[in-house]
Amino acid sequence: MTERIQDVAHLGRIELLTPKPDRSRWYFEKLLGMEVVHSAGKSIFLRGYGDYAAATLKLTESDQPGIGFISWRTASPEALERRVKAVQKAGLGDVWHDGEFGRGSAFRFRDPDGHRMELYYEEEKYRAPDHLRSTLKNLPMKYTARGVNVRRLDHLALLARDVPDNRKFAQNVLGFALREQVMFENGKLELGSWLSPSPVHHQVAYVMDTKGAHGRLHHISLWVDNREDVLRAADILAENGIFIEAGPSKHNNSQGFYLYSYEPGGNRVEVYSGSYLVFAPDWEVVTWNEEDRGTGVYWGTPLPESFINYGTPDVAADKISAPKVPVFDPI
Amino acid sequence: MTERIQDVAHLGRIELLTPKPDRSRWYFEKLLGMEVVHSAGKSIFLRGYGDYAAATLKLTESDQPGIGFISWRTASPEALERRVKAVQKAGLGDVWHDGEFGRGSAFRFRDPDGHRMELYYEEEKYRAPDHLRSTLKNLPMKYTARGVNVRRLDHLALLARDVPDNRKFAQNVLGFALREQVMFENGKLELGSWLSPSPVHHQVAYVMDTKGAHGRLHHISLWVDNREDVLRAADILAENGIFIEAGPSKHNNSQGFYLYSYEPGGNRVEVYSGSYLVFAPDWEVVTWNEEDRGTGVYWGTPLPESFINYGTPDVAADKISAPKVPVFDPI
Amino acid sequence: MTERIQDVAHLGRIELLTPKPDRSRWYFEKLLGMEVVHSAGKSIFLRGYGDYAAATLKLTESDQPGIGFISWRTASPEALERRVKAVQKAGLGDVWHDGEFGRGSAFRFRDPDGHRMELYYEEEKYRAPDHLRSTLKNLPMKYTARGVNVRRLDHLALLARDVPDNRKFAQNVLGFALREQVMFENGKLELGSWLSPSPVHHQVAYVMDTKGAHGRLHHISLWVDNREDVLRAADILAENGIFIEAGPSKHNNSQGFYLYSYEPGGNRVEVYSGSYLVFAPDWEVVTWNEEDRGTGVYWGTPLPESFINYGTPDVAADKISAPKVPVFDPI
Amino acid sequence: MTERIQDVAHLGRIELLTPKPDRSRWYFEKLLGMEVVHSAGKSIFLRGYGDYAAATLKLTESDQPGIGFISWRTASPEALERRVKAVQKAGLGDVWHDGEFGRGSAFRFRDPDGHRMELYYEEEKYRAPDHLRSTLKNLPMKYTARGVNVRRLDHLALLARDVPDNRKFAQNVLGFALREQVMFENGKLELGSWLSPSPVHHQVAYVMDTKGAHGRLHHISLWVDNREDVLRAADILAENGIFIEAGPSKHNNSQGFYLYSYEPGGNRVEVYSGSYLVFAPDWEVVTWNEEDRGTGVYWGTPLPESFINYGTPDVAADKISAPKVPVFDPI
Repeated sequence: MTERIQDVAHLGRIELLTPKPDRSRWYFEKLLGMEVVHSAGKSIFLRGYGDYAAATLKLTESDQPGIGFISWRTASPEALERRVKAVQKAGLGDVWHDGEFGRGSAFRFRDPDGHRMELYYEEEKYRAPDHLRSTLKNLPMKYTARGVNVRRLDHLALLARDVPDNRKFAQNVLGFALREQVMFENGKLELGSWLSPSPVHHQVAYVMDTKGAHGRLHHISLWVDNREDVLRAADILAENGIFIEAGPSKHNNSQGFYLYSYEPGGNRVEVYSGSYLVFAPDWEVVTWNEEDRGTGVYWGTPLPESFINYGTPDVAADKISAPKVPVFDPI
Repeated sequence: MTERIQDVAHLGRIELLTPKPDRSRWYFEKLLGMEVVHSAGKSIFLRGYGDYAAATLKLTESDQPGIGFISWRTASPEALERRVKAVQKAGLGDVWHDGEFGRGSAFRFRDPDGHRMELYYEEEKYRAPDHLRSTLKNLPMKYTARGVNVRRLDHLALLARDVPDNRKFAQNVLGFALREQVMFENGKLELGSWLSPSPVHHQVAYVMDTKGAHGRLHHISLWVDNREDVLRAADILAENGIFIEAGPSKHNNSQGFYLYSYEPGGNRVEVYSGSYLVFAPDWEVVTWNEEDRGTGVYWGTPLPESFINYGTPDVAADKISAPKVPVFDPI
Repeated sequence: MTERIQDVAHLGRIELLTPKPDRSRWYFEKLLGMEVVHSAGKSIFLRGYGDYAAATLKLTESDQPGIGFISWRTASPEALERRVKAVQKAGLGDVWHDGEFGRGSAFRFRDPDGHRMELYYEEEKYRAPDHLRSTLKNLPMKYTARGVNVRRLDHLALLARDVPDNRKFAQNVLGFALREQVMFENGKLELGSWLSPSPVHHQVAYVMDTKGAHGRLHHISLWVDNREDVLRAADILAENGIFIEAGPSKHNNSQGFYLYSYEPGGNRVEVYSGSYLVFAPDWEVVTWNEEDRGTGVYWGTPLPESFINYGTPDVAADKISAPKVPVFDPI
Repeated sequence: MTERIQDVAHLGRIELLTPKPDRSRWYFEKLLGMEVVHSAGKSIFLRGYGDYAAATLKLTESDQPGIGFISWRTASPEALERRVKAVQKAGLGDVWHDGEFGRGSAFRFRDPDGHRMELYYEEEKYRAPDHLRSTLKNLPMKYTARGVNVRRLDHLALLARDVPDNRKFAQNVLGFALREQVMFENGKLELGSWLSPSPVHHQVAYVMDTKGAHGRLHHISLWVDNREDVLRAADILAENGIFIEAGPSKHNNSQGFYLYSYEPGGNRVEVYSGSYLVFAPDWEVVTWNEEDRGTGVYWGTPLPESFINYGTPDVAADKISAPKVPVFDPI
């Protein structure tokens, strides 16, 4: 066994694309209770009250919903250097980008499936203006008690045409640890893999794109501290006419207590709590076959068909047949 | 800045000493809902349903309450080697010990204040017998729903005569990250320091021993997933005549939602949830002065005098004046 | 408007029939955490820790699952007299019964659909033995922290061939208030009605028996204080292989936060919290048509087919065609 | 035993006096999340999202904080007539008042201690405007998810110079049931009595005014559905600089899970959940002597001195000696 050094510290920022920026903003700001801290061009930047960074969610107007850049913060400048070399060696990108709000330069690339990613180290910490300063010295921002009031960014799940290929990339190039897998057909069909750079159960999942497309998003996930907060979120979303796709229920895989809804732009967003931390350095990957996995829930309701088949951008039936190989221009 | 490599993975096991082994067992097994998995000599070994290791709490009959060995699992054999060298270099111990239930050999030493510690890598994972097997494939043990049913070991707080000295040891020798500090008298009096090897807020705290003694315990802490579980714990302890010293309330420092009681042997035990994960690799230590710290609670009740002055073993008033320099025999 | 006097104080006891008495006992005692306080003949008597009466659930061995006697406690001896006269006038029964554990004499009858019922006033209060005495002077019994630990009996739902007929009986003969109704086909098809003698939202519901049978049970319901307790109940049932039919989710009708499972004898049992108290003496009945009612959930999952079609005792397909008029022998 | 008929249905409205109307409004509207539905003269009218009536809290500008009219809704016009006669017979008042927002005429009087009260039957139900309409047909108003978002008015506690006198009035004149009492000095000193017209544990408490004054308020109480909501309320109040006097903790008497703060006008306000419903028509009053009562908490923190000594309006030390007999003009 080679030592796994935790070079990536955590998921730092997600860019979400939306064709309905005003309504999407309303969803994240008024219903989920995130704070808008900056705007630039067609993007606004948001944060949860517990996020230490200036911003963790970038919402960008676009023709279609989907995922933009997924940014990973490294544990140190040295760690950044090591991972950049690994990405370069893998031939997945070679471009540095400057000037994103609240951050230093970022190395841009794509994962094998074509999702755009960044690695960076320099990050501006959030300094709350007076009216958003918490009375808790160790809390970056006031708990505003607006809507769900999600605490922080937790993870995201990406659709991929070839799960093993992207899972290996996350393990070998990014240095993530593999936590759980859904393996059907006697272990020959890898439907999904859950990985993390830290004791957090997973910060990225690769799940098979049933439509054979590339670069699509399954969901992003925002953390609340208690299961009761997830129930409250369901009340809030229901009161505001938001489509709840599944939950509140408990996954078997990850033990996550979830609530999936579609934000107005069409992207699936999870309000999430529970799950478990993984402390074992020699963690034994948990695999779920057809029987183990069942409907994907420990209790609650079987996940609906849409949970398997819908991602963003959506793919029309007649366009499924000929997915393109992704072009690896990371900008 | 030198890179901090996370050589210690997590707090692996705590040995608690008790003069009332039967009553202490009743407290941990029947009230807190831990599982007794082994006994050897004057010790029994227990675990939370979510602990991956075979055992995380060792309860040993003793004349007095207090803390025995505190065991840290390293991230790899190489990490163990590195940390053993650091301890040896610091002159804090040099003994390997074999044969503890569920583990490989452990390197024994003492921290500067004299608390006994171990570093080890090899650990046996828990394999549940049929009647304790969970229906969740990724849960090591059935949730038995007996009493509080704490999930896992979380952290401990140690009293120390010289907090800075021991805090520096944890940073430099064990490689822990410093998270928060209580610093009075314009930063000259370090009353407490909270440290962790991982994103968990803290796994050890050093707090000033107001009686000037050595090697004493302030409390051990066991995790539950929701604040509601802590409230339920208070109901359970109150129904069983257990002395609740403080809480359920919320600390300002650490944001932990706590409930402190004394197990029958006299040791302070916390049932704990909330707090926050620290993801920032460049975390800025949060310091609390006299005004910031206040009564130590964010809301709830001021911590009682006993919280400052009581530790185990207890120190009689007439013995306070002449604390001994600890003898560093780590066995 | 004639004044409605609350002659019935509350639902006092439910007798549940089970072909698997040992397994049913295990479910109620070990999983739901009720206390067995008495046994007599083929029956055992149980209680929740918050029930003030000696026993609130009677579990009786029987060939088939289903509901036995449903007992209503009146507000006073005078109220009992008034309601007995009303039942006699309605021609639904005329038998007094003595000798049930923990109670005085009861007047036995049947509702129009044939469910056996009792009215009584004299009730023995629970006096806890030492080991079950609570440290709370106003709590009848210790919170034992065993399993779900349901607090008290809340309500039950009965299947009926003719909902309006039985609903009118509950209103006019028992003096219950009507709270909510599911009315399809422009108000012509009354599918369900929820009624209560007190501010509790409902203590009985009549729901259409889709198989046209008589005297059957839809479910009984046991109360816990917080939604989190219902989630915990789901964990406990799932760990013990109990079939969860629906939930934890939130009904639209009643706002109840529910978890339906089948106890081993086959009866549907709900663990329940939330809902709302009805204080308005001039409450306007809430009616739900096809569109309003939707799938019966506010959020969570559509109720499964079984929720509509399964009751106890179960009715085989070939026996549905010729339901008998119930014979009104109330003993 | 004479039958107790529940003539009073429930506590209908409370008028709170405040010298800081803008700040008090901010507290109730923005922090507790109540909705302002009307203003008239120096008063504004508010409601919780679950209150069925148009308004349940009237906030009136005044020189001093304290309690204005306490309004009880009767179960019927006949019940109103009966209770009005009882009040007249007791010589406590004889004035009808018209024109309060959202209600029909009310009969005004004073309790023996001088608190102003009303009895009324006609009440306007809340009809939500479009933007406040709930997606739940049985919920009077949208859950807005602003701040604590208290559900409804629950109860109030009044200071009284002579507790037994006022307690008897509540029992005999209003027809309330006595639930719990704090009786010191071998039952000769009645320090507090808790009463209710319905299964709700208490809707009014009379507590001894330690300063010997008249007509003062101890606290009003607003309901939330879960204990977790009370914890969340503590976070919200702490973030907004509101003085938390006690809690979140659990009372022994009533089992209520409480959080007491002072609204900016100076009145004590409780955010409240838990407690228990009283179904027994022959409830045995629970009495607490010095030892039973202890510090008034089951777990949490001893209630502070201010909880015993502070009420509104506050009484200066030099004015305590000569309390006046209240003048019974109820307007």
